[in-house]
Amino acid sequence: MQPKAKRRIVVIAEFSIHPIGTGTSVGRYVKAAVRSMSGIPGLTFDVAPMSSVLEAENIGTILEAVEVSHRALRSMGVKRISSSLRIDERLDKRRMMSDKTRGLKRLTRATS
Amino acid sequence: MQPKAKRRIVVIAEFSIHPIGTGTSVGRYVKAAVRSMSGIPGLTFDVAPMSSVLEAENIGTILEAVEVSHRALRSMGVKRISSSLRIDERLDKRRMMSDKTRGLKRLTRATS
Amino acid sequence: MQPKAKRRIVVIAEFSIHPIGTGTSVGRYVKAAVRSMSGIPGLTFDVAPMSSVLEAENIGTILEAVEVSHRALRSMGVKRISSSLRIDERLDKRRMMSDKTRGLKRLTRATS
Amino acid sequence: MQPKAKRRIVVIAEFSIHPIGTGTSVGRYVKAAVRSMSGIPGLTFDVAPMSSVLEAENIGTILEAVEVSHRALRSMGVKRISSSLRIDERLDKRRMMSDKTRGLKRLTRATS
Repeated sequence: MQPKAKRRIVVIAEFSIHPIGTGTSVGRYVKAAVRSMSGIPGLTFDVAPMSSVLEAENIGTILEAVEVSHRALRSMGVKRISSSLRIDERLDKRRMMSDKTRGLKRLTRATS
Repeated sequence: MQPKAKRRIVVIAEFSIHPIGTGTSVGRYVKAAVRSMSGIPGLTFDVAPMSSVLEAENIGTILEAVEVSHRALRSMGVKRISSSLRIDERLDKRRMMSDKTRGLKRLTRATS
Repeated sequence: MQPKAKRRIVVIAEFSIHPIGTGTSVGRYVKAAVRSMSGIPGLTFDVAPMSSVLEAENIGTILEAVEVSHRALRSMGVKRISSSLRIDERLDKRRMMSDKTRGLKRLTRATS
Repeated sequence: MQPKAKRRIVVIAEFSIHPIGTGTSVGRYVKAAVRSMSGIPGLTFDVAPMSSVLEAENIGTILEAVEVSHRALRSMGVKRISSSLRIDERLDKRRMMSDKTRGLKRLTRATS
């Protein structure tokens, strides 16, 4: 439904969440948080090893992802939740998250 | 000296915001962001050298601080804004931000 | 396609760096930082839209990436540098950065 | 022993560390990390509710604080450690951590 992937002005963010005190394996909590974000209209996201990258047309949508993620962990009975969010809001140039790594990927040395 | 300061269950967070591309001195933007937060009902905050510490009874209030801070910088004409938020939500114990440094302050070596 | 890729105990981190005050486009500085990291023995990294994901067998290697990145920006004449590092050190289980997104990728909604 | 508190060019950072999986109370680990930093020559630090503020003349000293803190938690038997570091390196102006909150403190609303 985005036929030409038009350049929009978007807010890009990086979000990470984990419980403290439930054991060293937190995968199922991270999965619940990611799943909770999938119901948010207007939010695009991708998972990376340390966080999820979020993309939306406005900050409110990004912040909603934070709110539903905390709610998801609370509903699983988590008693202490730590999360981290970094926002990059750019108003002078239309871009998407994929634009940010263009030209950098060839410099990386991935696990082989 | 805090006669009734009752222990509430609160969300404590750390928030930092700065413009990118407006010069190396960003103090007036930080001040505008801090001022914008002072209008939020239910939000307690304190400034530290690298960020502001926020305290509220729920996450929505914390996220509102992020939203108004970005809005404050946009209204000053900033074209790119970087912000960072770390949340510590604890449900098993009533505490306030001051509880978190108790017993640690005496270990510090502050600038003299 | 990773025939022996043996599981090692590794430190995984997320690192981001940008200059403040050089304009809103910071791509060439990010590229210089990423390039500076490519000379570090024992460091594996991958770039994501908001940060680079770093992987090494010990924390010293991760911290060296921070040091050379700051040096790279200073050598370009940058007068103020902001960086962010989040470390996840795990000692009870052998894993690599690719293990952390397994099972999560299918939940994402990437830009289309 | 710093009679006139002369302005130096310093690196200011914010550092936070906690174990994952040892229970919701992490105070004794935080205390061990803070204590481990007190042996680092050239490092000044202050604790805040969400992190410690670090100040040093060069980045290497800041990174040493990260390294000793992780070591302190490992030596307590922690199996998974999460830490977060934000660095603000400024080369065009001499300042100390106390300069960064000047003029902002009066805007705050502390817990009362």
